[in-house]
Order: sequence, then structure tokens, then C-alpha cells
Amino acid sequence: MSEYWNERTKKISPYVPGEQPKDRQFIKLNTNENPYPPSPKVIEAVKKAADEKLRLYPDPECTELREAIAARYGVKTEQVFAGNGSDEILGFAFGAFFESNTVCCSGCCGTRCDNCDGSREPAPVLFPDITYSFYPVYAGLWDIPFKTIPLRDDFSIDTSEYKINCGGVILPNPNAPTSIALESEKLLSLAKYLEPLNKVLIIDEAYIAFSAAKNAQSVIPFIHKHPNLLVVHTLSKSASLAGLRVGFAIGNEKLIEALCRIRDSFNSYTLDRLALAGSAAAVSDTQYYDEINARVIATRERVTQELQSLGFNVLPSSANFVFTKAPNLGGSDLFAGLREKGILVRHFNKERIADYLRVSIGADEEMDLFLVACREIIGRG
Amino acid sequence: MSEYWNERTKKISPYVPGEQPKDRQFIKLNTNENPYPPSPKVIEAVKKAADEKLRLYPDPECTELREAIAARYGVKTEQVFAGNGSDEILGFAFGAFFESNTVCCSGCCGTRCDNCDGSREPAPVLFPDITYSFYPVYAGLWDIPFKTIPLRDDFSIDTSEYKINCGGVILPNPNAPTSIALESEKLLSLAKYLEPLNKVLIIDEAYIAFSAAKNAQSVIPFIHKHPNLLVVHTLSKSASLAGLRVGFAIGNEKLIEALCRIRDSFNSYTLDRLALAGSAAAVSDTQYYDEINARVIATRERVTQELQSLGFNVLPSSANFVFTKAPNLGGSDLFAGLREKGILVRHFNKERIADYLRVSIGADEEMDLFLVACREIIGRG
Repeated sequence: MSEYWNERTKKISPYVPGEQPKDRQFIKLNTNENPYPPSPKVIEAVKKAADEKLRLYPDPECTELREAIAARYGVKTEQVFAGNGSDEILGFAFGAFFESNTVCCSGCCGTRCDNCDGSREPAPVLFPDITYSFYPVYAGLWDIPFKTIPLRDDFSIDTSEYKINCGGVILPNPNAPTSIALESEKLLSLAKYLEPLNKVLIIDEAYIAFSAAKNAQSVIPFIHKHPNLLVVHTLSKSASLAGLRVGFAIGNEKLIEALCRIRDSFNSYTLDRLALAGSAAAVSDTQYYDEINARVIATRERVTQELQSLGFNVLPSSANFVFTKAPNLGGSDLFAGLREKGILVRHFNKERIADYLRVSIGADEEMDLFLVACREIIGRG
Repeated sequence: MSEYWNERTKKISPYVPGEQPKDRQFIKLNTNENPYPPSPKVIEAVKKAADEKLRLYPDPECTELREAIAARYGVKTEQVFAGNGSDEILGFAFGAFFESNTVCCSGCCGTRCDNCDGSREPAPVLFPDITYSFYPVYAGLWDIPFKTIPLRDDFSIDTSEYKINCGGVILPNPNAPTSIALESEKLLSLAKYLEPLNKVLIIDEAYIAFSAAKNAQSVIPFIHKHPNLLVVHTLSKSASLAGLRVGFAIGNEKLIEALCRIRDSFNSYTLDRLALAGSAAAVSDTQYYDEINARVIATRERVTQELQSLGFNVLPSSANFVFTKAPNLGGSDLFAGLREKGILVRHFNKERIADYLRVSIGADEEMDLFLVACREIIGRG
């Protein structure tokens, strides 16, 4: 705390990312990175860009990258927004679409003033109680009222519970850290419900590429029918480019324009020339990525079976990680045991999920070591 | 406008960056880029990083880069913040230090509520009427009240006029687009005035590297004496890396912590692995950059003299651009004439400066063509 911090700085609770170890060598299964390297075409494109014009500003409109994304997903370039990771895009989206407690132009400040009855307070944004833990952080940054909706007992999302008066909805599909996916029809039905309320539905599809073998599919093909549907992707997981920081959003032109307005009030050029070149190459190389992601999915299925045979509970995963509970050990003990053996996973010390660990799917050799370690720790070694 | 935009999105006036031409080849003197390429060590570092671990998240704390900056400027690593261009850092700084109209925890919303007398409205942030046009945009994004202080008739800043009740001050040194620098003592005296008010002074030193030959100097050495002084730099101009998007801020640890809190409520990883590697190499190669920037300064002095001999008014520049007025022609006419001849400069259609153009200092050959064009357009060809 400091006398120079404003009220916002004092009040917010920043996000804490998964550990990025610097010293010790770990088997790193804690931040859902892809175990395989990015496409060689990405490296080539980056090196070429390094030789060219780094002295000049990048294209603030990210045209080449947005055209590559538009071509791949069969949408218009004007329906694509590119940003410095999907986190940045989500930060902009909260600032663009969800009403703040405090941005009130009707001469009233909601419940904040002693003289107000609160009747004009904006309705809360909705998201699950167990989900990406950055969502409440964004809400805090922009001072947006929110309400969490509990997952069902089986950790699935009941979209009918989101059909209430609200300021908008954000759902990840598949959800994290639970790894469970939702069918498109349920999401589209929710979008339809929110449309006459003039509220936006954001679907965070960070992990959708790993759902391909299951029944969950991207809702990108439906943005034409739903002007209030924004779909957010990242290249960090499925394109193996966590180190390049690129994400994108696809939606109606008016939603994209709103994201541009917020970005251009904050930083005109959020993607550097190297990230632009590398990500455009990645988006175009579907063959390479389909192949490595199929390997991740195959490993996930194998690991799931082996964990189950050890007595672990494993939620049905459509992502590049599993959410799992040991038969005879709490989450923090298993986490500590694995860490001691040089294996980093993620533990959320939170009600309902404290017994679970989120384990990213690494290469087969890494997962074999993980399974051996689990066996030893639970006394089945 | 759209029914899905929130009040903020409807209300803000985004920044419009200088044109980045895609089709026609221009002599580009409109966005203050450095005419010389970045250090070869930067390119080498970027290519090396491209071969390594792009699949893994970058270091969210930017440790290596911050250590390089700390070593160069003789400060502690904890006194350094690194960001995705100085624009991003300024966006964070407005959000961290300057009070919003609307973030009001005392049960009052300032003038926004019909029932309030406005007595608790935060005092306005101060900056010059003619300065970097992104400052009022940041204020709009965060809904921060601000007041502009007119420059003197000679376009210089009178720091004594900023010694009033206020929410903080931001000044560029040298100022843009005027190019005029201020002496350090005046800035430090202002920092001292603001300290007991618990207000922050941000000095935006984007162009300070080009002041070296003049009397203006960085105030970085004085952050130890002034806990409310934040100094912001960019690698876009002096390190010839506009395309890499890196900036940094230096100040008291508590100010840096505030910036981290805002960043971590928005995007945990704003710098990718390539930008981190390249910028660390740039910061360490002072010899190369001292040399190219000395060339820019020499060209600026020559161009200034030649323009003056043509009857142009040229403000005394401490930056890598000049702010200049033709003897017999308005700013928009000269701008259009230059554009027609394939030379892009920047014109601000704004009171007091509509007759001026901001002209970035390019390579000698480019400036020769610029001077020939000026001669022709004003009829002295």
C-alpha cells in the first residue's frame, strides 16, 4: 500500500499466474502449454521479420494476421480482432461490453451514493463459480458487478441458470480448470436469450482445439446469427505459442469495433512485428497443428485411463489438461509430493476443488514420469 | 454505435496514430521513428530467442530485461517496470495513480449524482494544452478529470502554473509535438510540490536521448529523492525499435508495484519472449545507439538551419523531430504539398498549432529531399 496509489490500485486483487520456474528443471505441467514446438514456418516467419523494418511501427490494424484468421474461419476481416494474448482481449472485452458500477451517465451512481436507492445499479455479469480465475479480476479492474453461478455437482455448467436478468455472460468452453465442454446448442440458446436484453455472451474457447475428438465444437460459425456473440481464442495452447503472446476474437463487426475503441484508448500497437508475422504463419499451418494436437489428445486419453486404473477420479476432459483427484490424498499433499519429485502441476486451494489438481498434458515421456510419481505418492508404486 | 456497447465504449474518443502507409512508398517522417536500423545485437538476440521455447510462457516479471535496464541506469531492478511500449505503461499509470471520477469509496460519486454537491470530486490531473494527444484519451478511458494548462506564447511549459491543487501531473520532456525541453530543476521542484499532496508526477522521456547535446537531462537519477516521480521511456525512438513494442518506467518501488497491480489485473504477460530478448540486447548496446542518435541530432541541427534560411520558424528542438511553420503557407497546405511529393509528415489541425508541421528527422538523404520539396512548395525552388 502507498499514499500514491489511487482507490482502484488499493482495491483490486491481481491475478496470480502459474509458476514459471527459473532455477530448477521441472517437468512443467502447470500452465497448459503445448509440449510440442511451434510450426517451423512460425520460426522462419519470425526470423524473416527480425531482418526487416523493426525500426518502424507495426501495422496497428494487424491486417495480415486478421486476414489469415478470417480466411481460416470463413469470416470477414472486419469480424476479427487480434490482441496481445487472449487475456488482453478479455480485459478489453470486460471494459467494452460490461457496465461498470461507476460509469453512469444518467446522473446517478447506483448504490455508491448515500442518496441513491440503487435502482439504477447495473445488473451483474455472470460466470461460473469455478472457472478461469482471471474473470473476477477483470471485473475488479473495471469495477463491474458480477455474480457467480455454481457448477452442478458433477462440475458441469447448467446454461439455463444464466437465463436471468444480467449484465452479460462469459463462459469458457471447455471450462477451466474442470476441462468439461458444453454443446454448442446450449450456448447459442443462451446467446439468443441475451440478445433482446442487449447483452453480450463471450465464449472463451482457449482449449477448443483439444475438443475436436469430442462433441464440443467452436461457435464461430454462428456469429452471423448472433450479433451479441463474441468468441475468443488464444495461440498459446493449440498453436504452441505461449511465448509469442497472441490471441484473437471473432464476432459481429460492431463488437470488434468496440474492442478497437478500447484498445485505441490504451495502446495503439499491442502486437509487435515479430508476433504478427509468427502468428499469421501459425494460423495458416493447420496441418502441422492438427497433427501435434491429435497427439496431445491421444496422450490425454491414455493418461485418463491410467489414472482411473489407479483409482483417481478424472473429469471428462475436452482440453489439453485433466482435472483429477487422488483416491486417498488431498490436492495440496499430492501437489507437494509431485513438486518434490520435480513435477509441477496446478492446485487451486478453493472450496469444492481443493482435492483436485489440474495437470497439463505433456509429451508421452513426461506423462509416464508423472504416472510413476502418482503411483509412488499414493502408495501404489 | 451499437446497443451492445457499454457507456464507456460509447463515450471515449480513441487515439488516432500517425498513418502507417501500406501501398505507396513514402519518405516517412510522420511518426518519429529512427531512420537507422536497430543494433545487430538485437536482431541476433531475437533470432536466438525464436529458436528457443516459444511454446512456453515468457517470464511475467521480465527479470532479465529489467536487470539490464537497472544496470544501465544505476537503479534497483525493483525500481523498473517493463511494458508493451510506453503507451501501455502510460495507460497503466493513469489507471494506477490518477483518481477516477467514479472510483469513489466514500459513498459519494462527485458531481455525477443530482444529489451531490461535487465537493468530493477528485482534483483534475494536469498536462499542457499542446502535448502528446494520448493523455486526454487515457483520462477518458479511466474517466479521470483533467485540466490542460496553456503553453506560454513561445510554446514553452511554465511549471509554476502546475503548482496548484490537482490530482497529479504528466509532462513530456522534451514536449511533443513542440520539441522543446525543460530543465530538470523545474521538474524536480514540481515533484517536491506534489509530494505532500500525495500526487504523482509522471515525466514522459520518450525523446530524451535526443536532448543529450542540449541542456535537458533525464530525471532518472533523482527518483531516489522523489518517491512520487515516475519516469517513462520507450525503445521505439532512441533504440530504433518501434516495431518491437517495448517501453519501461523507473521510479520508487511502490510506484512500480502499483503498475504491476494494474497490469496483473489486465494481462499477466504483456511482453513476448522475442521482445524481451531483443530489448535486453538493445538496452545493453549503448555504444551503437549513442552513435546513431548523434547522427540524428547532427541532421536535426543542419535541417533546422536550412529551414530557417528558407524563412521557416523552427522551435528549438531537443527531440528527433522539428516543429516548424512555413513563411507563407498554412500547415495543412504544406502537409498536402509534401504528401503529393511522397513525403509524409504530421499535421495537427488544432488551435495555436494548425500552421505548424511535426517533421521527424530521417536520414540525411531523406531530409535533403524534404528540403527540396519545401523549397518548391513555398516557391523558392
